[in-house]
Amino acid sequence: MDNLLNQINSPEDLKHLNIDELTRLCREIREFLIDSVSETGGHLASNLGIVELTVALHTVFCVPKDKIIFDVGHQSYVHKILTGRRDDFKTLRQFGGLSGFPKSSESDCDIFNTGHSSTSVSAALGIARARDLDGDNYSVISVFGDGALTGGMMYEAMNDAGHSKTPLILILNDNAMSISKNVGAVSKHLRSLRMSPFYFRSKHAVENLLKKIPLGGKATANILKQIKRIFRRLVIPTTLFDDMGFIYMGPVDGHDVSAIINCLEYAKDENRPVFIHVHTKKGKGYAPAESNPQKFHGVPPFDKATGETKKSGETYSARFGSTIVKLANENKRVVAITGAMPNGTGLDEFQKRFKNRFFDVGIAEQHGVTLAAGLAKAGYTPVIPLYSSFLQRAYDQTLHDVCLQNLHVVFPIDRAGIVGADGETHQGIYDISYLSHMPNMTILSPATLDQLEVMLDFAVNKFDAPIALRYPRGGTEAVGVSPEFKLGQAQIVQKGTDITIIAAGRMVKRAQEAAALTNKSVEIIALPTVKPLDEAAVIASAMKTENVFTIEDNVKIGGIGSAIGALLKEKQVKCKFKIFAFPDEPVTHGSTDELDKLYGLDAKTIASKITE
Amino acid sequence: MDNLLNQINSPEDLKHLNIDELTRLCREIREFLIDSVSETGGHLASNLGIVELTVALHTVFCVPKDKIIFDVGHQSYVHKILTGRRDDFKTLRQFGGLSGFPKSSESDCDIFNTGHSSTSVSAALGIARARDLDGDNYSVISVFGDGALTGGMMYEAMNDAGHSKTPLILILNDNAMSISKNVGAVSKHLRSLRMSPFYFRSKHAVENLLKKIPLGGKATANILKQIKRIFRRLVIPTTLFDDMGFIYMGPVDGHDVSAIINCLEYAKDENRPVFIHVHTKKGKGYAPAESNPQKFHGVPPFDKATGETKKSGETYSARFGSTIVKLANENKRVVAITGAMPNGTGLDEFQKRFKNRFFDVGIAEQHGVTLAAGLAKAGYTPVIPLYSSFLQRAYDQTLHDVCLQNLHVVFPIDRAGIVGADGETHQGIYDISYLSHMPNMTILSPATLDQLEVMLDFAVNKFDAPIALRYPRGGTEAVGVSPEFKLGQAQIVQKGTDITIIAAGRMVKRAQEAAALTNKSVEIIALPTVKPLDEAAVIASAMKTENVFTIEDNVKIGGIGSAIGALLKEKQVKCKFKIFAFPDEPVTHGSTDELDKLYGLDAKTIASKITE
Repeated sequence: MDNLLNQINSPEDLKHLNIDELTRLCREIREFLIDSVSETGGHLASNLGIVELTVALHTVFCVPKDKIIFDVGHQSYVHKILTGRRDDFKTLRQFGGLSGFPKSSESDCDIFNTGHSSTSVSAALGIARARDLDGDNYSVISVFGDGALTGGMMYEAMNDAGHSKTPLILILNDNAMSISKNVGAVSKHLRSLRMSPFYFRSKHAVENLLKKIPLGGKATANILKQIKRIFRRLVIPTTLFDDMGFIYMGPVDGHDVSAIINCLEYAKDENRPVFIHVHTKKGKGYAPAESNPQKFHGVPPFDKATGETKKSGETYSARFGSTIVKLANENKRVVAITGAMPNGTGLDEFQKRFKNRFFDVGIAEQHGVTLAAGLAKAGYTPVIPLYSSFLQRAYDQTLHDVCLQNLHVVFPIDRAGIVGADGETHQGIYDISYLSHMPNMTILSPATLDQLEVMLDFAVNKFDAPIALRYPRGGTEAVGVSPEFKLGQAQIVQKGTDITIIAAGRMVKRAQEAAALTNKSVEIIALPTVKPLDEAAVIASAMKTENVFTIEDNVKIGGIGSAIGALLKEKQVKCKFKIFAFPDEPVTHGSTDELDKLYGLDAKTIASKITE
Repeated sequence: MDNLLNQINSPEDLKHLNIDELTRLCREIREFLIDSVSETGGHLASNLGIVELTVALHTVFCVPKDKIIFDVGHQSYVHKILTGRRDDFKTLRQFGGLSGFPKSSESDCDIFNTGHSSTSVSAALGIARARDLDGDNYSVISVFGDGALTGGMMYEAMNDAGHSKTPLILILNDNAMSISKNVGAVSKHLRSLRMSPFYFRSKHAVENLLKKIPLGGKATANILKQIKRIFRRLVIPTTLFDDMGFIYMGPVDGHDVSAIINCLEYAKDENRPVFIHVHTKKGKGYAPAESNPQKFHGVPPFDKATGETKKSGETYSARFGSTIVKLANENKRVVAITGAMPNGTGLDEFQKRFKNRFFDVGIAEQHGVTLAAGLAKAGYTPVIPLYSSFLQRAYDQTLHDVCLQNLHVVFPIDRAGIVGADGETHQGIYDISYLSHMPNMTILSPATLDQLEVMLDFAVNKFDAPIALRYPRGGTEAVGVSPEFKLGQAQIVQKGTDITIIAAGRMVKRAQEAAALTNKSVEIIALPTVKPLDEAAVIASAMKTENVFTIEDNVKIGGIGSAIGALLKEKQVKCKFKIFAFPDEPVTHGSTDELDKLYGLDAKTIASKITE
């Protein structure tokens, strides 16, 4: 049989296929995905689940005229394959290659860049309102998972959209999982809906019937109205989404391409906000992913036949996970909060061991942080590990609820610095800048796994105020650095007289590598405590060497170097000074080494600049 | 008749009063509020609306054992009066006096500090979970307005709370207004509930009746179950809050103290999450506030008899408002978004004139900013004025959705710098720090009203990327400064040879005042563009005077001074250097002058330091 997928060069080509062919195409797309992602790594399970839905979308709608926004965006692979990027797909998530997320710069079919959860309805509503102001008439569609529905921003947008009557199509891709198993009252509501029969047709049938009953005189009319009201409530169950002003349709079998097409055709002609509930299976069609969707949420390259991934070394996330279990065992007041990521952050063991001290709030970092503030206020020690780029969502809560009240909340910040393949929306290169100016906040940055362990014990048991520990993706460690840690004290990793290099976390190793490439006597100062800065140590070394360089995996503005530069200037310390940091521009995807090199943060570039 | 209020020194004293006395007490509290707030200024309307509810709460519950959290917190006046702070009430919102918001430092009856909207359920759930882990049994109550319900964080918390079955009492103080008229689908839902009969009693009656129907054999049982299901749905309307796992009670007349007490007594004994819907009238009992609750939301001192406030001079908010109307008139692609504050931000005229280009999203800054991103993506120019401390809520959306995509969204940042009486949760002293490190972001800061006008025209019509304009509360203007503005260019306000002072916005005037107090030749450089910094102008002046001082109404860390210090250090410019900025600690309430003085930002202190 001919390969159909190879003939699809744009969504236009889908429109000539019949249902059997579309079904066959879906099978081929699955094979293509498994083949390709097993080589490149990527978000497999969610894309396997959304094959039929994406094919149906491109059969019914015409991009780029119609606008489809994929929430979070890591489930846009099928969309990319169908919109002219099939042949580039082997470069996925690699430096210079295709992004793992929608990017307008890649294709005009990617109308809005996404990465963080729950943004798509807001963006879609904005585009739909612009369309209405322009008197235009294309469709605007937001596709999101049930995980995204746990984010408050989604509710803010639905509250606005459902009220405003702007035509808009919301599609819930409900696989009963966000990244790990879903939580919350709304999730329970969805569960009950999934078990109900398809509900739209009956609703419309009833409404039409009711419309046909004539209203007579005033008394009769009132009685009839009352009967109608009762009848309507009897026959038509209401959903949360009806309450919010949407026409609810569903649940639709998300692996029946014909059923989805019917539903979309109907929604397309509705002139109001529509909510389509599509029921899918995460990992659909690939046994290892179906049975372990968490593992295949985002995977490194794997063996297609077995689903096995290469074992990597111990990571900071793993060490955090094992240490927090140990600490919680000894200290009964330790509680942990996750934003739908017990696995990613290393909390899975804690979750099993301390069920009643573990709270998964869903993709709801804002609530998670203020929940932590409440627990802290009542005498507990909440630990809330979040990825650096996701803590951004709770900037206000961290400042307003935790820091202004000076509450003892522990923020392990995972994926701080360059995250690699996920790219610009996920780079953790802003946290030093956004946390440093919060009053009462302390920021730690371990240079080794053992140091993380010592610091976490300190943060949990020997401290009583807001404290963040930032550590990178992976397990990069400085060499020969003592795990010893004293709050507010810099650590002289290597003594020297010609040049001072100041670095924190992952960059301590870079400093060591750069120093080894020079023939100068380099003093390396690590900052286990990024804030408050050990001013005395910095000044002493600067006065000695008269040459100060800082290296950080954070943007330059508002970062470590900027604070040190201002300090040296205010204190009138005579020395040369230069900052190595990420520049004031979005930082693309690629490996840590590739991106460090691109921005002059590799050992060779640093070494050559400091010897100049 | 004796004055009852004078005899209430703690909530304990309420417990001996009968309903008539409590009703009389409510009347006295209203008089007290009007007397007192007409002298001090403050949030009057919302406190007039919540008198009975607060009295009922303190009659039924015992603080500090029971925990009551007031969302947003500006409606905690009655609570303060009843919890031992009646006599201090005349110092409200004044430097050194009572805060206008709950503060644990003031009283152990203020269990959790609030200020920004929609945080109270998260905090309450944290405290309730701590209680359960401790095996304790006090009540935890969150009191919030219908405005707070438009914030997504509230939904995140309810999704978690309704699911977890932790006993918790949520009280919706529904006055159908947040600050201005409420919006959104949920608001519509509330409206329909308000018109329904009280629904809890009937629900329980029906449930009890149904329980009594015996289930016979299997077939009969099934039929009976079916009948029960139908009957339940018939008689019991479901609300959004039922769907989210709460026991819904309401609506209760919020000005009938006896009815509220009954309801609270019931809720106290429920062992599950309860949602009480209380219907109140904003401004209740004071005619000028009832008829104009927006004006009396937050008021300066006013004439008690007439409700008249003193006219103040033109403010930046007002000039923003008149200018944006002018610009929107000429440029049809200008649209405006507000987060429930058309009046506070000066958008009221725009709202009237350009109804279809105006979007009030509720207290939902996150959605508002990404909605703006969507509109920008589709070719419109969204202008979204927010208070500096409220834009904090949309940090992630500003960075992730607007800046990374380099979209043309205009952010007028009102209340930047010291806001005065509202105090630490509302100080706008972080925005330079949290915006400067966002890639593609430009930050402007007008020193005069005319300059704001020129800048807004530039931002809307002559620019095509994310741009913020920060301006202070009130109308403080620098003297003799040309409104002229060139992007990225500093403005030499006064030439000099001994000393350079660099300032932005409101602080340009401080620089002028300080310069006038010295006998030195001072060069004053204003930064109409805060980012990107005019490095050449800064360096040139620094090389000339060899004495550089920066003044800003922002925290020191990550601010203007810090960036300039690092620049001067990296470029090896020989000069003395000092930063005047707010320190790394929460900044309390007080007037701008009082707080500037407290932190050494008054003209006298600056003058004396720079001449040293």
